[in-house]
Amino acid sequence: MQKINETIKNIGLLDAAAMERAQERLDSLTKPQGSLGRLEELAKQLVGITGKERPESKNKVIFTLAADHGIAEEGVSAFPQEVTEQMVYNFLAGGAGINVLARHAGARVVIVDMGVKKKLKVKSEKLKVKKIDLGTKNFLKEKAMTREQAIRGIEAGIEVFEEEFRQGVDVAGTGEMGIANTTSASAITAAFTGAKVEEITGRGTGIDNSSLARKVKVIEQALKLHRPDPKDALDVLSKVGGFEIAGLSGIILAAAARRIPVVVDGFISGAAALIAYHLEPKTKDYMIAAHCSVEKGHRIILEHIGIKPLLDLNLRLGEGTGAALAMTILDASLKIFTEMASFKDAGVSEEKK
Amino acid sequence: MQKINETIKNIGLLDAAAMERAQERLDSLTKPQGSLGRLEELAKQLVGITGKERPESKNKVIFTLAADHGIAEEGVSAFPQEVTEQMVYNFLAGGAGINVLARHAGARVVIVDMGVKKKLKVKSEKLKVKKIDLGTKNFLKEKAMTREQAIRGIEAGIEVFEEEFRQGVDVAGTGEMGIANTTSASAITAAFTGAKVEEITGRGTGIDNSSLARKVKVIEQALKLHRPDPKDALDVLSKVGGFEIAGLSGIILAAAARRIPVVVDGFISGAAALIAYHLEPKTKDYMIAAHCSVEKGHRIILEHIGIKPLLDLNLRLGEGTGAALAMTILDASLKIFTEMASFKDAGVSEEKK
Repeated sequence: MQKINETIKNIGLLDAAAMERAQERLDSLTKPQGSLGRLEELAKQLVGITGKERPESKNKVIFTLAADHGIAEEGVSAFPQEVTEQMVYNFLAGGAGINVLARHAGARVVIVDMGVKKKLKVKSEKLKVKKIDLGTKNFLKEKAMTREQAIRGIEAGIEVFEEEFRQGVDVAGTGEMGIANTTSASAITAAFTGAKVEEITGRGTGIDNSSLARKVKVIEQALKLHRPDPKDALDVLSKVGGFEIAGLSGIILAAAARRIPVVVDGFISGAAALIAYHLEPKTKDYMIAAHCSVEKGHRIILEHIGIKPLLDLNLRLGEGTGAALAMTILDASLKIFTEMASFKDAGVSEEKK
Repeated sequence: MQKINETIKNIGLLDAAAMERAQERLDSLTKPQGSLGRLEELAKQLVGITGKERPESKNKVIFTLAADHGIAEEGVSAFPQEVTEQMVYNFLAGGAGINVLARHAGARVVIVDMGVKKKLKVKSEKLKVKKIDLGTKNFLKEKAMTREQAIRGIEAGIEVFEEEFRQGVDVAGTGEMGIANTTSASAITAAFTGAKVEEITGRGTGIDNSSLARKVKVIEQALKLHRPDPKDALDVLSKVGGFEIAGLSGIILAAAARRIPVVVDGFISGAAALIAYHLEPKTKDYMIAAHCSVEKGHRIILEHIGIKPLLDLNLRLGEGTGAALAMTILDASLKIFTEMASFKDAGVSEEKK
């Protein structure tokens, strides 16, 4: 717990003075004030996060964390559990959606085994192994993990971020893989927001109506059994969470502590953001919501934290794919901020007063 | 008119068979079916447009057309009229928003003088001069242009596209610059959609409440004076249009005729899309709506044509900036389509049946 506490202690406020100077610069550029909308807001936020006059986004890293979920045995996913492991191999071979979109965005992908059910059959420098356990327990029957495991999971995320930070990280992104993890994310969302389970729970990888009804029932029963305490994020995480979700909340905490913007992907990443936010609300200022997922609980998460998604492209793949796309918007915003000519330099008349 | 008619004659249907094969390929890739949402739809549309099994987006061109508007003398803009000319110099020097975002997207920018009020003081191979006149007339008092000028304007757009097409165009984008052109675009939108002027008219570059009220009144009076016929696109264009808008509708027609996708930027580009759509409804299938502008009339245009914007980033700059950003999403969709591994190749289990 010491590592978590120290990390939280290092999370500061945005640099308000630098943001004011950023606003002045934005208003001096050859465009009607504010006419580049979210690009301008984002540039200002990035200045506030980093405290730098001219933030950079050269080193972009997407952290894609994988783990298995005991709840999968309740038939809540359209895919068999072995797909978690198989997709890790796909990530390492470079053929998955996140590989394609990370290359597009110029980001590197760090794959982390946080708790895949099987021991992985490969070694690769792209793969970090931080296995907390061989998948969580079935939280319909018992707690998904012990409180100690929840802490170790978050701390593993902090360690992963710190290892990469030493190699250079200007922008972090979150991503995940774990069959049945929308069930866990829905339960976490219900626990923190109090919204009804049926209003939160979606089709994940694409389950049919009867599976969806079962999924809702499973989550309702689990919440009734465990009564997770929304004032105690570790209680929620340990009772209905997942190891990749634990790790991602650690990534978010660590990024915020290092004043690095963290692009939060979709619904599962959003559940991790809820954990991080409830551990330390200041993390919110360091988050950039990549997109609004098709999973309907995601919008509820974004509203609860109070962050606005950049994209809305009907994505529901996860892996960090939305974060990768959003990083290209983030790059664009910094280029606008640093490369555009001012009214004065370009000899363009300003607004009539 | 012959060039317009010939161009329209060459606009065909999307390639339905190729789109079916594209859907099969998309469904074979290692992701739940449809989970990359708009990226998948876009890839399929691009296959349908080009008729190619593997469409490319190497040569991206943004056409930024500039012209002046006689209606500017009614005080409908926050900026003085000379800014149109000054911004053309800024485009040529590479310091404007569109230059920055086109570089970001890997697109080249073609600047066209369709009718800037002054004779431009520079020559540059980046600048094409297709001046129809030294700005339009004040359409509160008389028709903005003659019907002959409207035709020449559209045909100039077709020529510009064809000149670039010979050098290679895989994806076209539209953009514009013209002080007071949201007034013209609002009038065009009202004429075609029948929506109320006050529901269409926005603040453009950022006018205050009293100027906005004047702008609404100007448009209402002009529509009353001219009674543009929505069944005759050239009538609408000549009475309340602009030369850059005419040229952009030509670009859209020509791109569709060549089976090249055309990324339509914001509100002014949307008005040009209305002209093109009413000249030939099949153009709709070749359009990709880049984003939804802050200018409230834009949403009405998109709904009227029946196209869904990719981005919603509170942009209202124009120039083609939204189109440039959307081109990065288009690139991403094609990379997903061509680079992702299939279930079979990656050895990943498919959905449970």
